[in-house]
Amino acid sequence: MVSKIDHIGIAVKNLDEQIHFYSDVLGLPLEKIETVPDQKVRVAIFPIGETRIELLEPTSNDSPIAKFLEKRGQGIHHIAYFVRDLEGNLEILEKKGIELIDKQPRIGAEGSKIAFLHPKSTYGVLIELCEH
Amino acid sequence: MVSKIDHIGIAVKNLDEQIHFYSDVLGLPLEKIETVPDQKVRVAIFPIGETRIELLEPTSNDSPIAKFLEKRGQGIHHIAYFVRDLEGNLEILEKKGIELIDKQPRIGAEGSKIAFLHPKSTYGVLIELCEH
Repeated sequence: MVSKIDHIGIAVKNLDEQIHFYSDVLGLPLEKIETVPDQKVRVAIFPIGETRIELLEPTSNDSPIAKFLEKRGQGIHHIAYFVRDLEGNLEILEKKGIELIDKQPRIGAEGSKIAFLHPKSTYGVLIELCEH
Repeated sequence: MVSKIDHIGIAVKNLDEQIHFYSDVLGLPLEKIETVPDQKVRVAIFPIGETRIELLEPTSNDSPIAKFLEKRGQGIHHIAYFVRDLEGNLEILEKKGIELIDKQPRIGAEGSKIAFLHPKSTYGVLIELCEH
């Protein structure tokens, strides 16, 4: 079903402050900053090997990231796995009893199709499946 | 400094239960299970692309993972970045004002040299640097 990690999403309060850490301290190249209206976030994307670090800053108080920051503070928010047939895999997962947050794909960063699995079914890890 | 993600560490209460999820639901191959005495954990290693998912189950109540589970529950514990010269990079990081949990490398899974940075300096993300 999954063949590589597409990206790791990190919830941040202040994008600019953290961009400094990822580019100047860890030495990762900043590819771009984009806004994802559907998730109400501003995203800084750092490619690393075959995957990416995505820093997620809420653009509104009702953004899922704003709620996460309130509850848990800054930190790792989700792991996104790359899949080839998102709709087909969501069907398979549902048949296996996995609870889905998104039964139908939504639009994520860079126009990709994404869907989240419920952490109840994945032992506390928020998992995103992602098709480009 | 960092060129790829070496692994993602996930804190789990029960390794066997979660191995089922990662192998039978997500379809990842289980490479091996090993015990890391220094960290007081049993680790299940799943290669995925150029990186790995590592499930970490505490083998003792004073394991760092046991403490994490108590405080935050099951979930993503750390991101490990692959580096070439761990000692040299730790020196550079300290000069840049990054607080280190390990000023000297310790021994991690598969005999690798590892060191953790303090989440205070990394905006709530526990970062491991890892040299094989």
